Amino acid sequence: MAADAERLRISVTEDDGARLIDCGAAVPGGVEAGRLLAEASMAGLGAVTVAATAVTGEEGPAAVVRTDHPIAACMAAQYAGWEVKGDGYFAMGSGPMRAAAGREDLFADIGFTEQAEACLGVLETNTAPPAEVCADIARKCGVATDNLTLLYAPTNSLAGNLQVVARSVETALHKLHELGFDLNRIQSAWGTAPLPPVAGDALTGIGRTNDAILYGGQVVLYVRGDDDSLAAIAPRLPSGASPDHGRPFGELFAAYDHDFYKIDKLLFSPARATLANLDTGRSHAAGEVLPDVLRQSFGLS
Amino acid sequence: MAADAERLRISVTEDDGARLIDCGAAVPGGVEAGRLLAEASMAGLGAVTVAATAVTGEEGPAAVVRTDHPIAACMAAQYAGWEVKGDGYFAMGSGPMRAAAGREDLFADIGFTEQAEACLGVLETNTAPPAEVCADIARKCGVATDNLTLLYAPTNSLAGNLQVVARSVETALHKLHELGFDLNRIQSAWGTAPLPPVAGDALTGIGRTNDAILYGGQVVLYVRGDDDSLAAIAPRLPSGASPDHGRPFGELFAAYDHDFYKIDKLLFSPARATLANLDTGRSHAAGEVLPDVLRQSFGLS
Amino acid sequence: MAADAERLRISVTEDDGARLIDCGAAVPGGVEAGRLLAEASMAGLGAVTVAATAVTGEEGPAAVVRTDHPIAACMAAQYAGWEVKGDGYFAMGSGPMRAAAGREDLFADIGFTEQAEACLGVLETNTAPPAEVCADIARKCGVATDNLTLLYAPTNSLAGNLQVVARSVETALHKLHELGFDLNRIQSAWGTAPLPPVAGDALTGIGRTNDAILYGGQVVLYVRGDDDSLAAIAPRLPSGASPDHGRPFGELFAAYDHDFYKIDKLLFSPARATLANLDTGRSHAAGEVLPDVLRQSFGLS
Repeated sequence: MAADAERLRISVTEDDGARLIDCGAAVPGGVEAGRLLAEASMAGLGAVTVAATAVTGEEGPAAVVRTDHPIAACMAAQYAGWEVKGDGYFAMGSGPMRAAAGREDLFADIGFTEQAEACLGVLETNTAPPAEVCADIARKCGVATDNLTLLYAPTNSLAGNLQVVARSVETALHKLHELGFDLNRIQSAWGTAPLPPVAGDALTGIGRTNDAILYGGQVVLYVRGDDDSLAAIAPRLPSGASPDHGRPFGELFAAYDHDFYKIDKLLFSPARATLANLDTGRSHAAGEVLPDVLRQSFGLS
Repeated sequence: MAADAERLRISVTEDDGARLIDCGAAVPGGVEAGRLLAEASMAGLGAVTVAATAVTGEEGPAAVVRTDHPIAACMAAQYAGWEVKGDGYFAMGSGPMRAAAGREDLFADIGFTEQAEACLGVLETNTAPPAEVCADIARKCGVATDNLTLLYAPTNSLAGNLQVVARSVETALHKLHELGFDLNRIQSAWGTAPLPPVAGDALTGIGRTNDAILYGGQVVLYVRGDDDSLAAIAPRLPSGASPDHGRPFGELFAAYDHDFYKIDKLLFSPARATLANLDTGRSHAAGEVLPDVLRQSFGLS
Repeated sequence: MAADAERLRISVTEDDGARLIDCGAAVPGGVEAGRLLAEASMAGLGAVTVAATAVTGEEGPAAVVRTDHPIAACMAAQYAGWEVKGDGYFAMGSGPMRAAAGREDLFADIGFTEQAEACLGVLETNTAPPAEVCADIARKCGVATDNLTLLYAPTNSLAGNLQVVARSVETALHKLHELGFDLNRIQSAWGTAPLPPVAGDALTGIGRTNDAILYGGQVVLYVRGDDDSLAAIAPRLPSGASPDHGRPFGELFAAYDHDFYKIDKLLFSPARATLANLDTGRSHAAGEVLPDVLRQSFGLS
């Protein structure tokens, strides 16, 4: 991406050693920057393509993702599990730097971290991380600051919008983890979600990108093991299993007085999920897309 | 493309210095040659993929295009705005050579041309351009003839068919320009149109490729600025805003005594267009696909 | 693939000189390994992509294939026309090694074979080919054993599942050959078929991958020549032209006492096929997809 910065309309700067790649804050960025940002957040272990979908009722772009390394790509990298803070700075952090830091409880469950010489992280923010924050991240990852690359873009940018919507599979895995499912059973995965119109502000952006997955996301997870556990967990996996399901995220958030932690955390998962058992050939699917909610959230007439 | 000529079934020859690449006139060419031809016509600043669409009522191939450089890729390059003439030769010319020549009024509006050392152009024709035409193009572009590459294919060839249908976004931009819209507001774009069966003759080919966009093209343009102007222009953008809309191009052309200039020039735009405002997050969409007209034009039973 | 074995989750070993690449027997393999396996089986003369389709009634992955070398890619390479046998070993063999061996009657019809220095073959099996089998293949191909690469995966693996479903175009060509059609008329081709859930056993896997094409495959073949012959053959081309059409393959196979040769061999073709005449622009299409049979075969509720 750095070598192709002009074409991607991104900027590459250095801040006390750390390399900062702005993909959509003070620069226009674009759809291709977002696609590459999404692949970077997956540690290069998945493929993200911009396809067409008619899930909203008319043809529009979709973020399609697939990986043969679901735990490493989605859980150890793509999941935005690092709250990057410092000096009044805040951003949700994702990408392979999380595996190098290995500070989240999640890593005990998935059973591996990484010792890295160089690290990459993705920040969902409209502000470049200050030098102290970069130094802190590098320290936590055990790398020299000049071996740290941080890419960033706000949710309401072309690139930020796409990289969040490319999380259909990650969201399903995270929900399964919350439900106590052994993620090591998941061998490969495929998912799609419609790309919403980029929002004008961060809050709406978070709402639309969440809704893209909650009400338009469809995933197939290829798993191993017994069918009984899959039959039991499949109906609990899609967003529809949550009592908070059915309203656009923005509306729900307002109804909960803008307190994120009041929202049922088990809401966050794709609209429809299929667990395809590689050992028995049986599929366990549940959930359905809600085109009307998508159109309402996306502001489509 | 030249290095991969055999696999692409294209021919590479030299005519008094200029390099000529036949993509479908005296050679078979193919779908992949057409895909690369389309990307070349966009100066390498957009991605063209062959996807699947069900817009005609059954699944078939579609040309999906996206770019983060819509003005440079589509207006300064892909738009077929150069009538290449000389010695009885005629072809519609597109590609980045147009920006090097900078002879069209359009370039005053978009505000830039290019000084090039080497140039590439695309000609929609079934005849190789003669040496005088090549020399004339090179002169107008300010390059030595042996730094000029011209790719050509007739509309009714596999490659020519695809490269025209890859113009869904370009058509929308051109229509917006005709409507007086400031193209600099357009940041990125995505579009799709069904690939018609290749026609048996040039006229039918022009009809079908036009219809693919007029009645099957769907684009999303990511723009900046105020919503009022977008709300005002959106209903005027799709092909349906023209009184000439509703009939296959070939039928319309015949009704106008085969006089192209009698057709409403504001007809030429995609079936449906969405202006997605990056500044406010609001979308302004209008138009609809007409599967029946597509099937009639494409000769599908 | 060999250079990227870890990411593809495949293994590369050597057996008395021959290079063996396991894509899904004793290794997990994956979707990307399957995509590359499918392209390898086509001698690198076609593009295989994993797209999205809603043909089963919900969005899921599809194998989309296209080629501008249909005879070389599909007939001389991809068609599984070599029954690899020896020492109790058996596997269906495909890939460009078939053209080097040139032992099938088919090659007399298509009019060419290949003299190769190095060869690649694809085996549909869950067992590595023994050394004698490799030596025998190399001998028949006229290459040294250490210039032979064999890739293999069982049908009921992620990679094997995809590589079979990528045969929508090949199946159409083979059926046309059975019907006596001159394959040299076919210039280019495009096809899609839904990717079924990977089966738990080989027999179910064969059933599902066949059904994906029989009841969900849709192809467009770009052909040359007269329309009368196309109009005559088009209704005979899709699977629906066979009296055995309408039931999942597994059910049919059981009804015929598991005797493969009792099944009408003209059943094997896509659900829908369009012959698009490049010379006249006329299309001749027949057949339709059967979503209910797909869902039954795939075990989707």
